Amino acid sequence: MKHALNVTREQDFAAWYQAVISEADLAEESGVRGCMVIRPWGYGIWERMQKLLDAEIKATGHENCYFPLFIPLSFFEKEAEHVDGFAKEMAVVTHHRLIQKDGRLVPDPEAKLEEPLVVRPTSETVIGAAFSRWVQSWRDLPVLINQWANVVRWEMRTRMFLRTSEFLWQEGHTAHATPEEAREETLKMLEVYRSFAEDCLAMPVIAGEKPENERFPGAVSTYSIEAMMQDGKALQAGTSHFLGTTFSSAQNIRFQNSEGQQELAHTTSWGVSTRMIGGVIMVHGDDDGLRCPPRIAPHQIVIVPMLRDTPEDEDILAYCAEITEALNAQDVFREPVRAHLDRKSAKAANKRWGWVKKGAPVIVEVGGRDLAAGNVSVLRRDRLYKADGKLDSAIMAKGDFIGGAVQLLAEIQTALHEEATAFISRNINRDVKDMEGLKAWFSAARPGWLEVQWSKPTGAALDKVVETLKGLKLTLRNVPSDAGPADGACIFTGDAAVERVLVGRAY
Amino acid sequence: MKHALNVTREQDFAAWYQAVISEADLAEESGVRGCMVIRPWGYGIWERMQKLLDAEIKATGHENCYFPLFIPLSFFEKEAEHVDGFAKEMAVVTHHRLIQKDGRLVPDPEAKLEEPLVVRPTSETVIGAAFSRWVQSWRDLPVLINQWANVVRWEMRTRMFLRTSEFLWQEGHTAHATPEEAREETLKMLEVYRSFAEDCLAMPVIAGEKPENERFPGAVSTYSIEAMMQDGKALQAGTSHFLGTTFSSAQNIRFQNSEGQQELAHTTSWGVSTRMIGGVIMVHGDDDGLRCPPRIAPHQIVIVPMLRDTPEDEDILAYCAEITEALNAQDVFREPVRAHLDRKSAKAANKRWGWVKKGAPVIVEVGGRDLAAGNVSVLRRDRLYKADGKLDSAIMAKGDFIGGAVQLLAEIQTALHEEATAFISRNINRDVKDMEGLKAWFSAARPGWLEVQWSKPTGAALDKVVETLKGLKLTLRNVPSDAGPADGACIFTGDAAVERVLVGRAY
Repeated sequence: MKHALNVTREQDFAAWYQAVISEADLAEESGVRGCMVIRPWGYGIWERMQKLLDAEIKATGHENCYFPLFIPLSFFEKEAEHVDGFAKEMAVVTHHRLIQKDGRLVPDPEAKLEEPLVVRPTSETVIGAAFSRWVQSWRDLPVLINQWANVVRWEMRTRMFLRTSEFLWQEGHTAHATPEEAREETLKMLEVYRSFAEDCLAMPVIAGEKPENERFPGAVSTYSIEAMMQDGKALQAGTSHFLGTTFSSAQNIRFQNSEGQQELAHTTSWGVSTRMIGGVIMVHGDDDGLRCPPRIAPHQIVIVPMLRDTPEDEDILAYCAEITEALNAQDVFREPVRAHLDRKSAKAANKRWGWVKKGAPVIVEVGGRDLAAGNVSVLRRDRLYKADGKLDSAIMAKGDFIGGAVQLLAEIQTALHEEATAFISRNINRDVKDMEGLKAWFSAARPGWLEVQWSKPTGAALDKVVETLKGLKLTLRNVPSDAGPADGACIFTGDAAVERVLVGRAY
Repeated sequence: MKHALNVTREQDFAAWYQAVISEADLAEESGVRGCMVIRPWGYGIWERMQKLLDAEIKATGHENCYFPLFIPLSFFEKEAEHVDGFAKEMAVVTHHRLIQKDGRLVPDPEAKLEEPLVVRPTSETVIGAAFSRWVQSWRDLPVLINQWANVVRWEMRTRMFLRTSEFLWQEGHTAHATPEEAREETLKMLEVYRSFAEDCLAMPVIAGEKPENERFPGAVSTYSIEAMMQDGKALQAGTSHFLGTTFSSAQNIRFQNSEGQQELAHTTSWGVSTRMIGGVIMVHGDDDGLRCPPRIAPHQIVIVPMLRDTPEDEDILAYCAEITEALNAQDVFREPVRAHLDRKSAKAANKRWGWVKKGAPVIVEVGGRDLAAGNVSVLRRDRLYKADGKLDSAIMAKGDFIGGAVQLLAEIQTALHEEATAFISRNINRDVKDMEGLKAWFSAARPGWLEVQWSKPTGAALDKVVETLKGLKLTLRNVPSDAGPADGACIFTGDAAVERVLVGRAY
């Protein structure tokens, strides 16, 4: 069986990932260090993600705002732990004008900023400063806001979607009167991310709390959703932080409570980014390219007319246009179906394989014979081949296809989710109880994760565990919210275990 | 008659503008020089603008992408005129790490970039570089893309929405095989902007070509839509540029034509920004705050329950919820109605005036008496007062109000457009034929614009005209596409006039 990409997942997973990004026209190198160009199909997927997640963020009472790209250094200096976490990777603006010198453009020494500005790596500081203006009384709380924005973290080694110097994300920021309410918010948004990943991206994830060493700089608790890629590695696909009073102290977010006393607000922040597109590729992709879950596919059904430069072409196009229109008049997942007629003048087989690589969930081909018989040829992207290795193209009566299209898209969404869920289920081992077993598990080719019992060490004891794991190229992922009870010994310390933690290789 | 703002348009237009922005919770100073915080109501208006304009941009065949925030200096050096136009106002990133020094954060001298990066002021150069990779053959043309992004132009004197160092916009960029096709695209997008301004923003504009001195740096022709603010000044609300081969030469966007020869592509670019929000304020605002056209109002109808902390409150809230739901189940302007129930615990009168200042098109108050009678009290924001200066609140049966709400919103959209159209019509004078008349017109308080005949001078002759006008604080706005014929003498040079040009004060 010959596949559409020139490298398979089995041969070289990293090269395969790059091949999908390139062949599916998702993104490309920009010529600007660490920054990518997100191409129309990749950006279309991001727009779909934005639309669906934005609706959930709004349904939970949050409003969108926009805060400055630039953050003065003085804002960062107020919170030491936070700045330590980001100082190594900040893009710094120092000048506001260019001049010509010896035929080259250079920053104008006369236009040096008095205080350098950082390009936001995240916005807790500048949004905290706004909250301190907005919050005076308990009546002003909670403040529930979100921002869709670009952020910059200077990365030395970049990988498209997964780690780029500039990326797109949403960052939610909230302030509350009590720590209980802020914790509840943190977990509510974790659940929004979990259900978004499962229901919209068809991407199974494990939600849980990060161990101390993996906390966001300045957070009291950090929670994440972790997805398993097809090479067994973990991708942190979203995080939600309970920030306690770290940022309200630093930025002076105080309110008068109902008894007339001044209190510090309790804040949270939470975000997901274009990194999720990388996750979708590595969870659903196959050796023919991307397989895009219908809910986030820019086009859910692509109609490819097989034209031959004959007068019949016009009839075929009219027939295809009629089908496209009938599809788009229906609703799926409570939105209009997104069917697209590919009118480009290229060979039909090339167009078909182009859409296969892009991962359009359903590809419909229509030739002269189909037209004459009132038929269409239907390819499901999630199961492209028959057992004999031939393309599994089904000839259907036009009306049957249109009438069943909504059901078909729902089926494909479910099938991708089930396939990925089966994969993660069979690649998490919960039975390993000692370091020998752990080493053996991770010495396999492309191991999945271990869920092990541990004593939740802190400080130096935790550092030691982290160091040991680092030697094995492993990290602690999170403590799954729905993990079973701990009833044995800690795999790392031998002490009585108190909970279960996920261990794995990670992106 | 007492108004909701503490300054009127008549008293001090600039102070009134700031008061609307502040009292309607549209935006605020961020503490970061030249950058504003766009607050939820302001950002909600921007989201509505984005949604409506994005649909038009896609309907005309464009796809969204995302390009890097940072542009290496070398990209700019390729196009001298372009860089000259922007060099004076560019934010320059020179370092990628901070360190602590004497207790302060400073850029790390060890982490100086080899090549400084500019924060994009506009993306012709970096998008041109992408086009040069994408375009090989005539079959790859046209390339029709758009980007929603933040851009930075370092401004010394800023004014919220109108001129900020960072702003949000969309920038369309296209490449074509022939200059004719590129010109056609330029005018097509100008028309998209014109109809968007008129139909969605209820903002009448004059579309036309900018004179040579007002062209975008590097453009062959620049077109604009110009809106008239209530103080008579012009606001350039959108621009569309025919770039010829300026950027295709600089960035090497070449294609093989159908005869096998290499040709340069012809490019365009076009953009509108958050500046339009400033335009909406100054076109539709009144002495009680903003009046938001229904098509871009985040909430079109706000229901304010008049609660008194009595058991009846629950019945009032249920009644209001039922009305909100019935409104939202209807469609207006081919979208669901956006009705909002204001459940906040504040005095009803304060809530009412809050929504008046924000400019919600319809405000519905419901008290115990309304509930008992099955009524609602309805305020139209576009005509708040009766002739006697009292609030023009209409008591209506609940069912009548719900049944007429769609019609009412359409009427308000039309009424705002008609009011603004009448204003611009009576404030453009087309009859002034000499400089004496011009000076007299502009010596009035808050003059509008003149449409004068001119000989379209170029080079030094044009510079002289521009200089003269500058002395009068005037600029040439554009040559209206639908202006009448020129049949007299040029008001500036005395030569035979060839066309008509708009002259006015501008933001």
